[in-house]
Amino acid sequence: MRAIVINEPGGPDVLRWVEVDDPVPGPDEVLLDVVASAVNRADVMQRQGHYPPPPGASPYPGLEASGRIAAVGDAVTGWKVGDEVCALLSGGGYAQRVAVPAGQLLPVPRGMSVADAAALPEVACTVWSNVFMLGRLRKGETFLVHGGGSGIGTMAIQLAHAHGARVLCTVGSAEKAARCRELGADVAINYREEDFVEVAKPVDVILDNMGAKYLPRNVKTLGAGGRLIVIGLQGGTRGELDLGALLRKRASVHATSLRARPLEEKAAIVAAVREHVWPLIESGDVRAIIDRRLPMSEAGQAHQILESSGHVGKILLED
Amino acid sequence: MRAIVINEPGGPDVLRWVEVDDPVPGPDEVLLDVVASAVNRADVMQRQGHYPPPPGASPYPGLEASGRIAAVGDAVTGWKVGDEVCALLSGGGYAQRVAVPAGQLLPVPRGMSVADAAALPEVACTVWSNVFMLGRLRKGETFLVHGGGSGIGTMAIQLAHAHGARVLCTVGSAEKAARCRELGADVAINYREEDFVEVAKPVDVILDNMGAKYLPRNVKTLGAGGRLIVIGLQGGTRGELDLGALLRKRASVHATSLRARPLEEKAAIVAAVREHVWPLIESGDVRAIIDRRLPMSEAGQAHQILESSGHVGKILLED
Repeated sequence: MRAIVINEPGGPDVLRWVEVDDPVPGPDEVLLDVVASAVNRADVMQRQGHYPPPPGASPYPGLEASGRIAAVGDAVTGWKVGDEVCALLSGGGYAQRVAVPAGQLLPVPRGMSVADAAALPEVACTVWSNVFMLGRLRKGETFLVHGGGSGIGTMAIQLAHAHGARVLCTVGSAEKAARCRELGADVAINYREEDFVEVAKPVDVILDNMGAKYLPRNVKTLGAGGRLIVIGLQGGTRGELDLGALLRKRASVHATSLRARPLEEKAAIVAAVREHVWPLIESGDVRAIIDRRLPMSEAGQAHQILESSGHVGKILLED
Repeated sequence: MRAIVINEPGGPDVLRWVEVDDPVPGPDEVLLDVVASAVNRADVMQRQGHYPPPPGASPYPGLEASGRIAAVGDAVTGWKVGDEVCALLSGGGYAQRVAVPAGQLLPVPRGMSVADAAALPEVACTVWSNVFMLGRLRKGETFLVHGGGSGIGTMAIQLAHAHGARVLCTVGSAEKAARCRELGADVAINYREEDFVEVAKPVDVILDNMGAKYLPRNVKTLGAGGRLIVIGLQGGTRGELDLGALLRKRASVHATSLRARPLEEKAAIVAAVREHVWPLIESGDVRAIIDRRLPMSEAGQAHQILESSGHVGKILLED
């Protein structure tokens, strides 16, 4: 098969579409014939050498994919050859074939193409596990997501809106603000023009991708009992935490990632997504937001677009 | 009645035992004839002018008391005049009488004197709400409490041990270390001689009273999925948080206090303490650790002892 290989850390041009050995699925895994994968920030960090694959993971980038099952391990139940699926991966999605633990498979939602389903696993699992399982966002609460135009942002806005929360987001342009309002954001804050603290506070749950840079302002934005959930560190890792403010608000700061979780936790998240998110996608209340599609061999160009933040929603890579 | 009055912020000598008006209980409150109160760090901060009583609370210090019910508000059910009780207060415990919301009353545990029961409400409610309700400490997990010899520390050690956790604590002397081991601590770390990070890590739940000073080392001590719960700021309020480490561990930082919570949250905590902690006290598995007893009029001396950290367990004030 072919896969995107990173022989040395560097810019988008280090991504090479070359012939490699097929993966060999274990007894609890299926082999997937990949139709599409999708691009995540973590792939850029892996390309730059800052985010090595966890032990046992594929060396190739790609945290999600969709396609058709080509082979099924002896211990796998509930899936068969030919099933159209999408999957959460710990790597290896930028390839023609990938081995997937059966607990990380989801059916392609009714009414959606196999390729488009590659836009869903990472954003659905990340948003559901963080905003709803960990952050326990409830109907009537206020929710703020930074980077409203990102893949995560577009899914978080829709899911929080569908659950009856008041939804705010930050964005970097008026065009993205308009798109986010179409998706259900009550307020879209252009961070180049306004301070989100003053516009947004008090907020019950914040989903943050900026880390240290936003930490003091995020804490200021939280209301009583608020939960700040950090899933990205684009603004650095070490920030000042005002524990006095946190204590007065009885608030909390959580930081998580999906990729390094144990298999059983990933399977529990995928099962919860199938139960709670898939019906909203099949009913049309929540949509996969796809910015554009590129051939797998042009993964470097996809990374350039992601790094310049010129997109809204997901960038797909199709085989 | 008499009460301890703080006419101006200052040292222990500003505490004066003087004649004041009786409190007037509301329809959802009882009037308590106080037998004993107990001293908390928050009382010292209130005396120093750093921790004003929340709106509606008594102006006098004292976050817990025990005694006999002298009058019952019209809307109160389940309690009657003469009942021997202890209570979580938002202030006013250093007095001969105090008005108490009925949801914050607990019966004096079987086998315990009325006076001794004043040692229980703050530590039982603080430890149960933070370590078990918020931190979800489970059997087989590892628990670290700073200040093992404090009132909070002695209760946290016993409750965590009774629930099957591995228990570590920090203390400032060999004598306190020995007392903490007697109470169920598996390891007592003298912070003057050893670095708790190296001895303790990885830990699932940390109960911390130091705030900023310990924040970086507490985060280093957490294991995967760890929860740091800050309930005191004796080491300052603003500290550096390594969000990268927190994210790799999928860990969280919580900061809380009991005093400013809404009445319904306090009532829920008190009800949970009655259900989960009271049986352990009545069976003798968990004990009230009382360092000494002083007359209410000598509250200043009690504060001096607390501030010098010369005690193990609670300091009672008896009328």
